[in-house]
Amino acid sequence: MSERGGIDLGGTKIQAVIVSSRNRVVGQARSKTPTAGGPAAVTAEIASAVEAAAQDAGVATSRLTGVGVGSPGEIDAAEGTVSQARNLPDWEGTFPLGAELSKALGAPVAIGNDVQVATDAEFRLGAGKPYRSLLGVFWGTGVGGGLVLAGKPWFGRGSAGEIGHMVIKRGGARCTCGRYGCMEAYAGRGAMELRARRKVEGGKSTKLFEIMEKDGKTRLTSGVWAKALRKDDKLARKSIERAIKALGAGIASAVNLLDVEAVVLGGGLGVRFGPACIDRIQEEMLPHLFVSDRPPDLHVAALGDLGGAVGAALLAKRSS
Amino acid sequence: MSERGGIDLGGTKIQAVIVSSRNRVVGQARSKTPTAGGPAAVTAEIASAVEAAAQDAGVATSRLTGVGVGSPGEIDAAEGTVSQARNLPDWEGTFPLGAELSKALGAPVAIGNDVQVATDAEFRLGAGKPYRSLLGVFWGTGVGGGLVLAGKPWFGRGSAGEIGHMVIKRGGARCTCGRYGCMEAYAGRGAMELRARRKVEGGKSTKLFEIMEKDGKTRLTSGVWAKALRKDDKLARKSIERAIKALGAGIASAVNLLDVEAVVLGGGLGVRFGPACIDRIQEEMLPHLFVSDRPPDLHVAALGDLGGAVGAALLAKRSS
Repeated sequence: MSERGGIDLGGTKIQAVIVSSRNRVVGQARSKTPTAGGPAAVTAEIASAVEAAAQDAGVATSRLTGVGVGSPGEIDAAEGTVSQARNLPDWEGTFPLGAELSKALGAPVAIGNDVQVATDAEFRLGAGKPYRSLLGVFWGTGVGGGLVLAGKPWFGRGSAGEIGHMVIKRGGARCTCGRYGCMEAYAGRGAMELRARRKVEGGKSTKLFEIMEKDGKTRLTSGVWAKALRKDDKLARKSIERAIKALGAGIASAVNLLDVEAVVLGGGLGVRFGPACIDRIQEEMLPHLFVSDRPPDLHVAALGDLGGAVGAALLAKRSS
Repeated sequence: MSERGGIDLGGTKIQAVIVSSRNRVVGQARSKTPTAGGPAAVTAEIASAVEAAAQDAGVATSRLTGVGVGSPGEIDAAEGTVSQARNLPDWEGTFPLGAELSKALGAPVAIGNDVQVATDAEFRLGAGKPYRSLLGVFWGTGVGGGLVLAGKPWFGRGSAGEIGHMVIKRGGARCTCGRYGCMEAYAGRGAMELRARRKVEGGKSTKLFEIMEKDGKTRLTSGVWAKALRKDDKLARKSIERAIKALGAGIASAVNLLDVEAVVLGGGLGVRFGPACIDRIQEEMLPHLFVSDRPPDLHVAALGDLGGAVGAALLAKRSS
């Protein structure tokens, strides 16, 4: 027995899994990310989620050979610290998440970048298995990117993969990051929601916010968008179409630069809409692909929602 | 003695160098690329250029331990073939440039991509020497890109580096490649010239074409642009400014994706205008850089005009 734990730490939820020595998911649990209490509260919530997942798997947390965390913000893997995780409560500074979580769980903890571990999971266990070079595109609140080149993750100086902030329209829409014309300004769920709110204020009608309230949500989640599309809501349809065009141009740009073998589409919106939208995304890529007779393979993330947590578990030390 | 030859094969000129075993340029020659006669005529002209450079260096071509060629088009390095080199006369098919040139010169010949060998030259001998990851941007008739990642050239599936065809304005200007919104549509000399001609047809006045004719040129060469700028020609100034904005956005996009340590700016326009423009390019990058407090180092190509040919010589086998 050598189970490991994996955590996908997001701005809204914490997903925990326990995987077997062969990386099979044998337990899982999910909880809400605290909105107050700072890094200490988040650490405590992660520890409970790991305990719940371990219970689901029938192992004690102290028996885990290691736990990995895929985190937003700036990661120092060697130090086990997370800095400037702006999606997390009061996390502007640097916090020793690795050491604190290890203390709480009684198991060694490794920290990695959320998007990069999800890409690595797809590369090693999911839709990216047949390839040696891969671009992971995580279409959710923002649009994150992860790279595997020549079989190895590519980090650059530590911040590679910001495909969401590639410029697809100079002088274009304002992004939630404050810059203009980023791909994420058109395709990120955060930006899409802001725009929908502005449209409603401007007098446009949409069922999006009705559905949101009925579902007891405070945000336009991917589920809300899906329901609005099923009701053929015009604003929802146009917004998703606009996002797809942006994704097509941005992914094609990245492929023109890197000529990777494959692109894997994950993230909240990517996993939900990918199966229906992937042909449209490819269609929007083609007019921008420099080598258009040999587009990269395009897949929806095979590990779905759990990819981030499973990828995080890959960070964890195996028993020696 | 173990001199090698290097050729930079361009659409308008053929630059040949002879380098010593320590990669010092010991001879050089330049000739015009034939505009007719197909691959055979180009091969003959390359052979003469190598002979002239060898004479300049005082060595016999048959004594060269190897000759490298940096070529446009699609390269098969193993086969020594060049396909679809659209800037060269009647070169739509596949031609065994390596074998034919080797026959003509009596020396082994290696073929590589023109932009990639120029990037490699800057990485190994020029402005890129201090770094392990590098983006080469060659600003000339088109805008080419070359990558070195973790100390090795990155080719992707053979076509990586097409930074000129990254989309910086979806739905924007038409590029000479036929696509819309490419960086090259704003920054490439070819696109800039087409636009200047259209502006003149539309009634705008400029000294660009006057200078071109006076200089006995048929194209708006980088020298023509430089003279027009010195005369404070408004169209020239605005065109270069537009190119700089496009370069800033495109390079920043590439850096957001790859987070390389450094960017080296070469090419005809890059070498000529780089020293004066590089601060403006950096200024235009900053608003789009995701990690704006840590921009990559930005340098003008240190090997100047000869970088392509010197890089090609690096391809050539050394004496064993």
